[in-house]
Amino acid sequence: MKVSVNKQALEIVLEIIDRKDELNCTVTQQRNGATLVDAGIAVSGGAEAGRLIGEACMGGLGAVRLTSVHIGDLTLPAVIVGTDLPGIATLGSQYAGWPIESEGYFALGSGPARALATVETKLYSELDYRDDCDFGVICLETRNPPPETVTQSIADSCRISPSNLYCLMSPTASAAGSVQTSARVVEAGMHKLHMLGLDPGKVRTGYGTAPIAPVAEDDRRAIGVTNDCILHGGRAYFFVRCEESEDLGILTERCPSSASPQYGQPFYDLFKSVGFDLYKVDPNLFSPAEFTINDVTNERTFTAGRLNPDALKQSFGM
Amino acid sequence: MKVSVNKQALEIVLEIIDRKDELNCTVTQQRNGATLVDAGIAVSGGAEAGRLIGEACMGGLGAVRLTSVHIGDLTLPAVIVGTDLPGIATLGSQYAGWPIESEGYFALGSGPARALATVETKLYSELDYRDDCDFGVICLETRNPPPETVTQSIADSCRISPSNLYCLMSPTASAAGSVQTSARVVEAGMHKLHMLGLDPGKVRTGYGTAPIAPVAEDDRRAIGVTNDCILHGGRAYFFVRCEESEDLGILTERCPSSASPQYGQPFYDLFKSVGFDLYKVDPNLFSPAEFTINDVTNERTFTAGRLNPDALKQSFGM
Amino acid sequence: MKVSVNKQALEIVLEIIDRKDELNCTVTQQRNGATLVDAGIAVSGGAEAGRLIGEACMGGLGAVRLTSVHIGDLTLPAVIVGTDLPGIATLGSQYAGWPIESEGYFALGSGPARALATVETKLYSELDYRDDCDFGVICLETRNPPPETVTQSIADSCRISPSNLYCLMSPTASAAGSVQTSARVVEAGMHKLHMLGLDPGKVRTGYGTAPIAPVAEDDRRAIGVTNDCILHGGRAYFFVRCEESEDLGILTERCPSSASPQYGQPFYDLFKSVGFDLYKVDPNLFSPAEFTINDVTNERTFTAGRLNPDALKQSFGM
Repeated sequence: MKVSVNKQALEIVLEIIDRKDELNCTVTQQRNGATLVDAGIAVSGGAEAGRLIGEACMGGLGAVRLTSVHIGDLTLPAVIVGTDLPGIATLGSQYAGWPIESEGYFALGSGPARALATVETKLYSELDYRDDCDFGVICLETRNPPPETVTQSIADSCRISPSNLYCLMSPTASAAGSVQTSARVVEAGMHKLHMLGLDPGKVRTGYGTAPIAPVAEDDRRAIGVTNDCILHGGRAYFFVRCEESEDLGILTERCPSSASPQYGQPFYDLFKSVGFDLYKVDPNLFSPAEFTINDVTNERTFTAGRLNPDALKQSFGM
Repeated sequence: MKVSVNKQALEIVLEIIDRKDELNCTVTQQRNGATLVDAGIAVSGGAEAGRLIGEACMGGLGAVRLTSVHIGDLTLPAVIVGTDLPGIATLGSQYAGWPIESEGYFALGSGPARALATVETKLYSELDYRDDCDFGVICLETRNPPPETVTQSIADSCRISPSNLYCLMSPTASAAGSVQTSARVVEAGMHKLHMLGLDPGKVRTGYGTAPIAPVAEDDRRAIGVTNDCILHGGRAYFFVRCEESEDLGILTERCPSSASPQYGQPFYDLFKSVGFDLYKVDPNLFSPAEFTINDVTNERTFTAGRLNPDALKQSFGM
Repeated sequence: MKVSVNKQALEIVLEIIDRKDELNCTVTQQRNGATLVDAGIAVSGGAEAGRLIGEACMGGLGAVRLTSVHIGDLTLPAVIVGTDLPGIATLGSQYAGWPIESEGYFALGSGPARALATVETKLYSELDYRDDCDFGVICLETRNPPPETVTQSIADSCRISPSNLYCLMSPTASAAGSVQTSARVVEAGMHKLHMLGLDPGKVRTGYGTAPIAPVAEDDRRAIGVTNDCILHGGRAYFFVRCEESEDLGILTERCPSSASPQYGQPFYDLFKSVGFDLYKVDPNLFSPAEFTINDVTNERTFTAGRLNPDALKQSFGM
């Protein structure tokens, strides 16, 4: 694999910087040279900034485009996501799997810089991928810009100079946050497949659609409604080249969010009922509502789960 | 606001000029240096030219993309429009609010040049925006290229040299005309919200879809069918950050085209019944068929109106 | 017509070459200088490569974009295609009308190089188009790269140097193959209209959507499922400027795939029943499932045919 997710993401970041006024973003540099792109903390940012962050998060290996979806009697603005390298683009790059924790600062890191740091050693050895690039791009879903000590530590983990580090920041409760979380619909599906034991390398192409969440007033509410866009409004579609003996039909049944016993209510209500402790939420719940898997080897197509317009309406306050 | 709608539009205009053969457009220069881009008067133009004109009209602050929509049992080619600066992109730029009238010539001017001329002083002071740019881009929905005296006068109003003025021209009854009018679906929604008293600055993100009208044989018929694409086939979706005390639910009910007593028949029939005098049409009618407003502050989502496939079928001659 | 389909396609080919790692394609040069782009023979390629091949096949005169379609209770990833020069983009470029046969090698040639060779003399004189360009782009739906003698012979027919020839290759049974065949939905409609006697020059704008076929295990199966995406899942929409006396309503009725007596079953079953001999399949069958024609001259819109979700489900192994 000669593709560098950070090199590809950097091109998108440079486009965001170039169009920053139009995108309502600000760009600042820390004294150590690290570049911070604010897409929703002190500025309003927007959906287009979120779309570009979504593409940067996938290491430039996927497209995130605006579309609309019909869900029950609702028609909602949505994103459509497609990637031909779903393992690397989502698990290897987009997934929020790197906890950035240092001197009281905490944020979940996602995006291509993870493939430089490879802190998640087991995952990267399974993916058989690690990036080699002088530049690093990290996405932080946060309301707090990281202090210099933190960007220094991220850069150190990535073995790059802090002046070559780019941090894309947006809170969950922002227009960019809404879009970049819905853009995770394929990632959510890949993560579930991986949890259920499928080798990510067998997934050849992934598509997904998810409605764009309304911006919530605070981040907890935003965690609720953005998750609902995936859990109750997301569709994922994968082409899988498996062994002849594998039964993807049984796997597919276990994939959608509805396969979890915690499925049913708007996510905020569940989140509140467990004291806002994400670790008390069944990990099997985090998955698109509707799953379609095309088994290329055995020429079968399996589908499971369905969209839940009622839960979405409750979540959207309709 | 550091964004220049004319500077951004100019990039799109230069792309149109560069691709003029493929877009079936012609580009000519008047003796005073003004550049005229014909996208449907003496040439056939096309839908892609209309799409780019739509984006130029929004001052480069919005995306206009091809999609398809399901309306009743119809599936129609459509545009999807999105913008993160709906106030400036639509009311401040795209809206056809500048009557260009001079020595017997008349056309409605739309697009970013309005933000240089700011003839509509009240609107621009409300928007708290005016552009400052040496170049100007104006769109004319017309069958008649403006004479040199007219482009000189437009340039004078914009305080630019006529050699820096670009006029994008397409008749209503043309493929480009069909697309660029459907691309006004978000603008139509913003205009209605503004008429009903909402401060445009409170609208953070706007989306819309509208089917693309068949090309009509003459411009009056075209005015009919292009309006029907918005009034009976258009959907708009806005994220609004209002005061806690504002009731966006009541506002939403007043928004869709169906809130007008003149709603119901294809627009051409109504237009004919008032002697083709647009000023006799209820201004409240000019609005998308379906309106969804997400009240960010109070975490509610309101929807009103519905698409009217029967009126569309009549209008399309089905 | 000053547009060069090969010049426009070359830009897209250079983009594919530039992004080859990310697109999972390989690029090699033969000793005679001809460039071979493999998008699915020895490499995995992907949907994005197929999308770009689709656009190159149309000579850069059309857009191929990712979308999703609702068909019965299915929601499937799909392409949406649009072109303002449907005659030249599809019949004059994209159509697989040039049998490349030489020393035991056989492949159907499609794409802009056909407009240089103009082997199909009758068609090109009807279209009143031939390209004049030093570079040639040809697409081969094949599992076998052409030997040098074949690329030499293609270049000779195109009156260009073999070092200026670019061959885009993908098997039917590949992700790129799935996408680039679905991207032929407008072409399939244009071909049917042409077969039924309509002058292609009268068609001003063409749109279409078709679901993207699952990748099949072998090319015969792939021929089945990719055809089904058009015949049972494809929609085409045309703006036609005809004579006042022409009756496009009767023409429209004859257009959809269902107008063929062989319509009904998944294509693979039919294909097998005629001994896998494509020449025994009714040519009238190769057409989109749903046809809409807008008669610009007489202001009527006609629609015929309908999607067949049951046949699609059978074909997809659901």
